[in-house]
Amino acid sequence: MIYKNTVVFDFETTGLDPHKDRIIEVAAIKIVNGKIQSTFSQLLNPEIDVPEFITNLTGIRNEDVQGAPTMKEVIPWLMTMFERSLLVAHNALFDLSFLEANTQRHLGISLQNQFIDTRTICIDQFPYQSHKLEVMCKQLDIPLTGAHRALNDVMATWELLKKLGDRTDLEPFINRLYFFKKYGRPDWAPEYSNVVGI
Amino acid sequence: MIYKNTVVFDFETTGLDPHKDRIIEVAAIKIVNGKIQSTFSQLLNPEIDVPEFITNLTGIRNEDVQGAPTMKEVIPWLMTMFERSLLVAHNALFDLSFLEANTQRHLGISLQNQFIDTRTICIDQFPYQSHKLEVMCKQLDIPLTGAHRALNDVMATWELLKKLGDRTDLEPFINRLYFFKKYGRPDWAPEYSNVVGI
Repeated sequence: MIYKNTVVFDFETTGLDPHKDRIIEVAAIKIVNGKIQSTFSQLLNPEIDVPEFITNLTGIRNEDVQGAPTMKEVIPWLMTMFERSLLVAHNALFDLSFLEANTQRHLGISLQNQFIDTRTICIDQFPYQSHKLEVMCKQLDIPLTGAHRALNDVMATWELLKKLGDRTDLEPFINRLYFFKKYGRPDWAPEYSNVVGI
Repeated sequence: MIYKNTVVFDFETTGLDPHKDRIIEVAAIKIVNGKIQSTFSQLLNPEIDVPEFITNLTGIRNEDVQGAPTMKEVIPWLMTMFERSLLVAHNALFDLSFLEANTQRHLGISLQNQFIDTRTICIDQFPYQSHKLEVMCKQLDIPLTGAHRALNDVMATWELLKKLGDRTDLEPFINRLYFFKKYGRPDWAPEYSNVVGI
């Protein structure tokens, strides 16, 4: 079920706010019956400046995105790929909030996809440690070269999902989001999420 | 100029004949000003059987492509990506002949893109040896994991192009195709090609 029709995806953005910030790179792989059926990554012109700290983090410069297509041009293809798939991301609430802001902005529709947050599963399985993608990959022997380019992160997240699936039943994690009570409840989550404070 | 707007691409197919055989996987990366701007790979439903020797070569099985989109559905996106780019492939005549057959079949148009065949450059630079992608990559220290899945081959071909560009001026190789006289002139090439028997 988990691997029947699944899209693992990741965005790089100009910052943390899905309403003020913009996506500068999208990457996604579509898994059908456990096998990668398609791979997609695209630099996007955010039509606003890429801050220097984002360039340092991602290697993506203003000059790299200025000639790139905009999300408005790319989102129809993206939604064709995402249609009816289970969406998987590491720290999924971040990527889902940007996806929701963009489907609202460009298509006037709200996200309906079931999802799995690999970070939530990591918190469940390895409670007393960091749950960053790099840390989890190192710990579980998953190669991750050039972190913070979206397609590398996506490939690593897919390997992470499979390793987590070898350890535990993934079904209960569909639509489940853990948050740390000490940091407060997230402002937004898909309405069908199961948001659990720990 | 070579790295300004370039698409490196590769097809896996059901066989050698661009009219009778069908594409089962496409992969392409778009390079803008020397940097990867987009990555795309897609399994395709050929609507004919995948022969057993192709499954052995590529790992792509009938069950992997039966639920996949068809070239007819994917070609509009593909042509958006390829538009006005310099096309690069290893043994480009093979991939160009399939691309031409498909643009004719689905869009009724003929290929207009300039191209570079990395195999032709390899023949020029390393005359007395095999020019298979695997062989060239090994020789030039280019990692190639899981050959004959299209995206791996594309990434390797891009690295190969850059290594060849460090050795020799690539401009004279635009639209140039070498063929070995002992095997005879190819049946088809883009009309603007510079087909050279050696």
